[in-house]
Amino acid sequence: MRAMSFAPLRNDTFLKACLRQATPHTPLWLMRQAGRYLPEYRATRARAGSFMGLATNPQYATEVTLQPLERYDLDAAILFSDILTVPDAMGLGLTFAEGEGPRFAHPLRDEAAVAALQVPDLEKLRYVFDAVTSIRHALQGRVPLIGFSGSPWTLACYMVEGAGSSDDWRRAKSFMYTRPDLMHRILDINARSVAAYLNAQIEAGAQAVMVFDSWGGALSDGAFQAFSLDYTRQVLSQLKREHDGAVIPRIVFTKGGGLWLKAMEQLDCDVLGVDWTVNLAQARALVGGSKALQGNLDPAVLFASPEAVAAEARRVLDDFGTPHTGAGTGPTQVFNLGHGISQHTPPDNVSALVDAVHAHSKRMRLEAPQRG
Amino acid sequence: MRAMSFAPLRNDTFLKACLRQATPHTPLWLMRQAGRYLPEYRATRARAGSFMGLATNPQYATEVTLQPLERYDLDAAILFSDILTVPDAMGLGLTFAEGEGPRFAHPLRDEAAVAALQVPDLEKLRYVFDAVTSIRHALQGRVPLIGFSGSPWTLACYMVEGAGSSDDWRRAKSFMYTRPDLMHRILDINARSVAAYLNAQIEAGAQAVMVFDSWGGALSDGAFQAFSLDYTRQVLSQLKREHDGAVIPRIVFTKGGGLWLKAMEQLDCDVLGVDWTVNLAQARALVGGSKALQGNLDPAVLFASPEAVAAEARRVLDDFGTPHTGAGTGPTQVFNLGHGISQHTPPDNVSALVDAVHAHSKRMRLEAPQRG
Repeated sequence: MRAMSFAPLRNDTFLKACLRQATPHTPLWLMRQAGRYLPEYRATRARAGSFMGLATNPQYATEVTLQPLERYDLDAAILFSDILTVPDAMGLGLTFAEGEGPRFAHPLRDEAAVAALQVPDLEKLRYVFDAVTSIRHALQGRVPLIGFSGSPWTLACYMVEGAGSSDDWRRAKSFMYTRPDLMHRILDINARSVAAYLNAQIEAGAQAVMVFDSWGGALSDGAFQAFSLDYTRQVLSQLKREHDGAVIPRIVFTKGGGLWLKAMEQLDCDVLGVDWTVNLAQARALVGGSKALQGNLDPAVLFASPEAVAAEARRVLDDFGTPHTGAGTGPTQVFNLGHGISQHTPPDNVSALVDAVHAHSKRMRLEAPQRG
Repeated sequence: MRAMSFAPLRNDTFLKACLRQATPHTPLWLMRQAGRYLPEYRATRARAGSFMGLATNPQYATEVTLQPLERYDLDAAILFSDILTVPDAMGLGLTFAEGEGPRFAHPLRDEAAVAALQVPDLEKLRYVFDAVTSIRHALQGRVPLIGFSGSPWTLACYMVEGAGSSDDWRRAKSFMYTRPDLMHRILDINARSVAAYLNAQIEAGAQAVMVFDSWGGALSDGAFQAFSLDYTRQVLSQLKREHDGAVIPRIVFTKGGGLWLKAMEQLDCDVLGVDWTVNLAQARALVGGSKALQGNLDPAVLFASPEAVAAEARRVLDDFGTPHTGAGTGPTQVFNLGHGISQHTPPDNVSALVDAVHAHSKRMRLEAPQRG
């Protein structure tokens, strides 16, 4: 029994908040917390030689995953990896050109390419699962480990576009509007692939999983439901609910998806991530009765002074309001940014953020009327 | 009386729909309808030598403004210009490098630069007002002419960032969070400048005005209200309501602002523009009792087949539902894209769009129960 070999968890605030249970403070972690803003990350990356050299080596991946935890009192770790590992394992040929971002040698551009697409052999992603197990051991029960994947739609954006980011996803959307049948085939394969990928991460030791629907917000109302939400739903329906006796919380984050929160409430997940355009009080009123909320500080706040960072962090906590205290379940927040932390962030500002979130969220609980 | 010399308006569907009055069909125009997707635009631009050569010459501006109307049965014309003319007149030194987009020689980066900022001498923008009058004459009353400006916040984004677009407006937001006092000073000056600029366009012949808040949606909830919405409100409070006996409708469009529609309903404007993430039926229920809605086809739809374009256009009209018919005022739609038309759009697809909007919106009115 491999799970027996993992150390018992010492900080369960993140997992409890995901499941809408009371915690002594509001847990926080940061999207892309192991990343370029940290000099120690840049040093490891230099040793690894390349981004993929880093991501495909479980030892390096473990090292960088733990780096932010050495500096900051974060309440969760997240696997260091890239969402494009899955299409790479499908044979699309991922490369990262220096200063240019990711690129696929074989993007999906025609019917033949789509017809040839298959759920990848998970053995090709063994390095990811090995990294999960390695990180889980290295954490020694300090905080839980989050596994993740891109959503079927978000992966499809990159798979059709062929290159890094796009400001309008022109090729992906053209393809969707011109050949919706082919896009649905890609998404169906992606959904089955993502589910298998996340289940393997869970079996390897991931204690929560997150689906990053980074580009769902680029879709129109209607297209979002048909091409993004419906396939995220398919992923969730195939996921393991528990592993080794523990419930595995599921987080879904659609960047720019604030208008669709009510529709997303129907998803079989525990947490909905929201970006900084969302009013947390309104979101709590809308979906807080069934979902925890994760978010939503604008990463740009971290460019300001430590005092301004702390003030904005308190504002975000106050916007959500005092979370559930006492027994049973109720509205809870997992503090995070509304997007990945910028490489230009001064590391000291992250300390200011973490301290402010912990201190203020403890104070809010003490000042709250006692319940149940 | 210059206005007496303009020909009487023959197609008032756009102005009526802006004012929530019944029209025989749903009027449409397209953001950036005079632009690079048209070969005749590219030919004029080549003759002008540069983008600014085009925008600063009233004869060229007139020529390209009318080009889409020669091809398509659009219901409004919009001044061909650029939102960066105002900061250029403030002395920031606008240039357009080929293939790179706009750049300011003197971006606002410190207290001294902000202290020196002033409302520009409108004489420096005479070429814009001359273009408005020239276009209005050239239209011969065919359709109304829309004038426009960037919103105070959107202009500030470019003024601080210094260069074209940004994927995260890092400098502008850093500046806002670090020195909100300086950002408020910029925005106050921008609001007064934009109001004066739009009033001068109205006096020169613009029959409606639109404020493009292209980057309001990049702000967090809270920051949007304080740094974007409040200054758009200031612009509107300084605008002429009527000119030469005609009401001048006002349109405000915040890209990515769908979550703030209810707050925007308080603006003293007639029309709210919405992008394609917004569900039009919900938006109508929310603000249709006091505002016309403009939008909201995803420009990416125009890359599909003409049949798919027509189907999506009908879907957008159906989402809004049958507009007000009969006397008085009620919910109305101005059909548009949710963003500027892409340079990669096949021109024939715009014909399919225009035909579908006119035909289907007429049919909807015939099939609607008769009222008032």
